[in-house]
Amino acid sequence: MVKDHPDAKLFPHATGAADKMVKAHQKEEPLKLYSGWFCPFVQRVLLVLLEKKIPFQYIEVNPYHKPESLLSLNPRGLVPTLEYENKPLYESTVVCEFLEDAYPSSMPKLLPSDPYEKARVRIWIDFVTSRIIPSFHRFLQYQPKSSSDPGLEKVRSDFHHQLAQFTQEMDSTGPYFLGSEASLIDLVIAPWAVRTWVFDHFKGGLNLPQGEKWVERWSKWLSAVEKRESVVNTISERDKYLPIYQRYADDTAQSELAKATREGKGVP
Amino acid sequence: MVKDHPDAKLFPHATGAADKMVKAHQKEEPLKLYSGWFCPFVQRVLLVLLEKKIPFQYIEVNPYHKPESLLSLNPRGLVPTLEYENKPLYESTVVCEFLEDAYPSSMPKLLPSDPYEKARVRIWIDFVTSRIIPSFHRFLQYQPKSSSDPGLEKVRSDFHHQLAQFTQEMDSTGPYFLGSEASLIDLVIAPWAVRTWVFDHFKGGLNLPQGEKWVERWSKWLSAVEKRESVVNTISERDKYLPIYQRYADDTAQSELAKATREGKGVP
Ligand SMILES: N[C@@H](CCC(=O)N[C@@H](CS)C(=O)NCC(=O)O)C(=O)O
Ligand SMILES: N[C@@H](CCC(=O)N[C@@H](CS)C(=O)NCC(=O)O)C(=O)O
Repeated sequence: MVKDHPDAKLFPHATGAADKMVKAHQKEEPLKLYSGWFCPFVQRVLLVLLEKKIPFQYIEVNPYHKPESLLSLNPRGLVPTLEYENKPLYESTVVCEFLEDAYPSSMPKLLPSDPYEKARVRIWIDFVTSRIIPSFHRFLQYQPKSSSDPGLEKVRSDFHHQLAQFTQEMDSTGPYFLGSEASLIDLVIAPWAVRTWVFDHFKGGLNLPQGEKWVERWSKWLSAVEKRESVVNTISERDKYLPIYQRYADDTAQSELAKATREGKGVP
Repeated sequence: MVKDHPDAKLFPHATGAADKMVKAHQKEEPLKLYSGWFCPFVQRVLLVLLEKKIPFQYIEVNPYHKPESLLSLNPRGLVPTLEYENKPLYESTVVCEFLEDAYPSSMPKLLPSDPYEKARVRIWIDFVTSRIIPSFHRFLQYQPKSSSDPGLEKVRSDFHHQLAQFTQEMDSTGPYFLGSEASLIDLVIAPWAVRTWVFDHFKGGLNLPQGEKWVERWSKWLSAVEKRESVVNTISERDKYLPIYQRYADDTAQSELAKATREGKGVP
């Protein structure tokens, strides 16, 4: 018998606004999204689907208790996994760009048509995955060795530094990264941006250096993003996230991402 | 005075077939590639430029002794860095896709036009960067603790495992990943594939498990790739690479990639 994954006992389904969204996407569709309600990588794909109003079927799975339906599509056993005309796709950023390509008449367009601007967006999408998310997790999973351990300040300010670099690339007026309209780069970082409350809850505060110019720009960006319907409708009740993030904050989580962070690695 | 980077004293320019290619690309062009002759990430971009016959100017820089011309374009100070109509671009895979987008009439097309097939190619491009290259470097930089240390076998067979997973996704006839024609996925892994001699030289052999079906397919792929003009013309004399790879093999190299590998991280 396979021993149960230590993270498998999570709350089993979406709640709040996200639950309504899930219930509205139960009808059988050729496009199926294998999801975990709590998963920020899944949220990226949901944001694209909802923004572009692409019809899809939402299928809840527990990636820490991988059902055969998931493993047969994606041997890595991670969510999000997409089923498109009976063929599998995975890796959240690849899936997001796929949706943009495969539904060319679904508006809004989420990537600039100019090749240079598109490439610039891709550099910063890569920055989110390769720098911001690992830094988010190093901060969240950090365990101070004593009450005077300066390490917590170090991981906190490294996270600030990554956000600052990202924010400095934003259009100066905004409110979004590229200007007045939301695009893929906003959607790809949004799931972590709307989860930064975990630092206030578990790590003594996100403590952005108020007064700095980039913090002002970041806050303007965040309040625009938080209000978008797609974002609101992909968030569950906060108390349901708490036990999951508690395990990260205590550094006892055993997800691939938690383990990779512990080993100093990036996103699996 | 800035202390010299310990890796800065490398041979200063391309040699052999690559030197001829470099000399043929000295004329001023609006598209400029800041390169290091030894760098496999640069080679990715060169392969795309040469395959598509896109005019470009080759500019040799030493990324361990970063000139202002490089830093002003790319604050990360890495090669490849592209200058396109006076604007910078970097990150090798982003640059490769940019060239495909920005020169739509330059043949051959290197990405499938079908959105699903294109997404599948992107999953495996990501696999090269996030799994194969880190595994290549863990193997190359491994330092056995004693003559009976099983660690070297472990990193060697992990590298085999990554190559096997990649190879199993290839079209069964080939010779290329997608079939009879080369595409971006072949070019993105080629620089590491043609450098696997370093394991024979430094690490007691690459020692692929001969007789296994994937090894046969891999070898067929490799001999097709090695013969391509673009590949031949982007390789310098082997003895010029030796001192550079010696520092990796001894685990004394101080490049960002060498340090990341030492910390268990991925590609910087
Ligand atoms: N690189 C993947 C990461 C996805 C991922 O890590 N998903 C988590 C849930 S948030 C998962 O499925 N974890 C299962 C596990 O760790 O075994 C992507 O971008 O889609
Ligand atoms: N993610 C980058 C990696 C490029 C890279 O690591 N280039 C090396 C040379 S092979 C470099 O510029 N190293 C300079 C340094 O480590 O400071 C890409 O794909 O372009």
